Amino acid sequence: MGKTIPVLEIFGPTIQGEGMVIGQKTMFVRTAGCDYSCRWCDSAFTWDGTAKEEIQQMTAEEIWQRLAEIGRDCFSHVTISGGNPALLKSLGGLVRLLKAKGIRVALETQGSRWQDWFYEIDDLTISPKPPSSGMETNFAILDEIMDKLTANGRTVHMSLKVVVFDERDFAYAKHVHQRYRYIPFYLQVGNDDVAGMDEAMLRTKLLNQLRWLVERVAYDPEMNDVRVLPQLHTLLWGNKRGV
Amino acid sequence: MGKTIPVLEIFGPTIQGEGMVIGQKTMFVRTAGCDYSCRWCDSAFTWDGTAKEEIQQMTAEEIWQRLAEIGRDCFSHVTISGGNPALLKSLGGLVRLLKAKGIRVALETQGSRWQDWFYEIDDLTISPKPPSSGMETNFAILDEIMDKLTANGRTVHMSLKVVVFDERDFAYAKHVHQRYRYIPFYLQVGNDDVAGMDEAMLRTKLLNQLRWLVERVAYDPEMNDVRVLPQLHTLLWGNKRGV
Ligand code: SF4
Ligand code: SF4
Repeated sequence: MGKTIPVLEIFGPTIQGEGMVIGQKTMFVRTAGCDYSCRWCDSAFTWDGTAKEEIQQMTAEEIWQRLAEIGRDCFSHVTISGGNPALLKSLGGLVRLLKAKGIRVALETQGSRWQDWFYEIDDLTISPKPPSSGMETNFAILDEIMDKLTANGRTVHMSLKVVVFDERDFAYAKHVHQRYRYIPFYLQVGNDDVAGMDEAMLRTKLLNQLRWLVERVAYDPEMNDVRVLPQLHTLLWGNKRGV
Repeated sequence: MGKTIPVLEIFGPTIQGEGMVIGQKTMFVRTAGCDYSCRWCDSAFTWDGTAKEEIQQMTAEEIWQRLAEIGRDCFSHVTISGGNPALLKSLGGLVRLLKAKGIRVALETQGSRWQDWFYEIDDLTISPKPPSSGMETNFAILDEIMDKLTANGRTVHMSLKVVVFDERDFAYAKHVHQRYRYIPFYLQVGNDDVAGMDEAMLRTKLLNQLRWLVERVAYDPEMNDVRVLPQLHTLLWGNKRGV
């Protein structure tokens, strides 16, 4: 099974809702499994067992077939998300296959594990988790990941993203930004109503939180070169899966 | 008066609401005057005479003083918008001053005029206006602008952005994207309720339109490598000025 990839969802074309390529037309491949269990995880079905029956072990070639089937000739960008796709050494094969097909590849991971195929990702988002997640960052590992990527000239192909729910998260975000100050840095508004609040209320709540975060950043001189963003897909489609 | 700049607003720190640096913390300098009169212009006060009394003729140094006064040490990015700032040869001095201070400079123009200081802009957005604006694009001039920037290796510092209200605008956007296919391309949802609709309704309308635009782009093979975005500031603050 070393060469197969546990896949939970393949969907698109749609747009990337967050981070460094927000708005980009893309296809999504969502892998199963995570080494974290964030309190507010919006894709807990990838690791909490509830979608166990939906996991398919697929080869890179099979994933490509499926992408081509639903995306037809209407995509040039694929986003791999999770769970934590960085758990999967076998993803390297998919990344290389996509690149060979002329596809740009984006991937998000929390930065708890290294994989050599990180070097091949066009838009790599490292999103260490703030205190509100209940997780603790291993900065020794994160340092190593950031050092390797920086030393290999990957800084234009990567970014850091921290989700912020509250003041403690904000302080954490600041620490991360200071620690890796030459890496493009994104702050993202937290969304903890993953259980499906009314869409209009969710929207109002998210926009209120975005306003707060913008105000919080505005007069903080340690947060000058940052980007503050919501999750567009949540504003558009609430917490629905597969859009 | 050759060295002064007609300024209508200086405000911030806030975030950039649209385009290639969406979410970026920035200060805004809005210049007066436009050679267009788009039907749905959301800053018509810069050219229609209604804010004539508010225009201040300022030197680059005075603008810098004002930015430092309100932005303190809390900014490293300045966005120059209009009106059409590309009407002003004198802006070159401000751009150079800002760069000398270590500030990153963004600027948006519709692409109807060339200025040599375009080469010095870090995040240059060229946003030709679609049919719904009532304006007509002079493609000879636009070609010349794009050629100069491309020949000078500015492609990583620029993008094209087209606002889309309807099918005709979409066809226009497609034409622009095909014509300059190696330039990062942004589609932006149109906002024609500039007169101040109720905020919640405006928000719903904009998100509906964004959904439409995403669906329109999804299965169009000529629109694969594009980014689709709303105006965040309109979602956040409606049509208020100075935020
Ligand atoms: S790292 Fe991501 S996928 Fe894993 S638990 Fe946290 S939010 Fe969920
Ligand atoms: S080019 Fe811009 S500022 Fe000028 S009229 Fe059109 S929308 Fe308004």
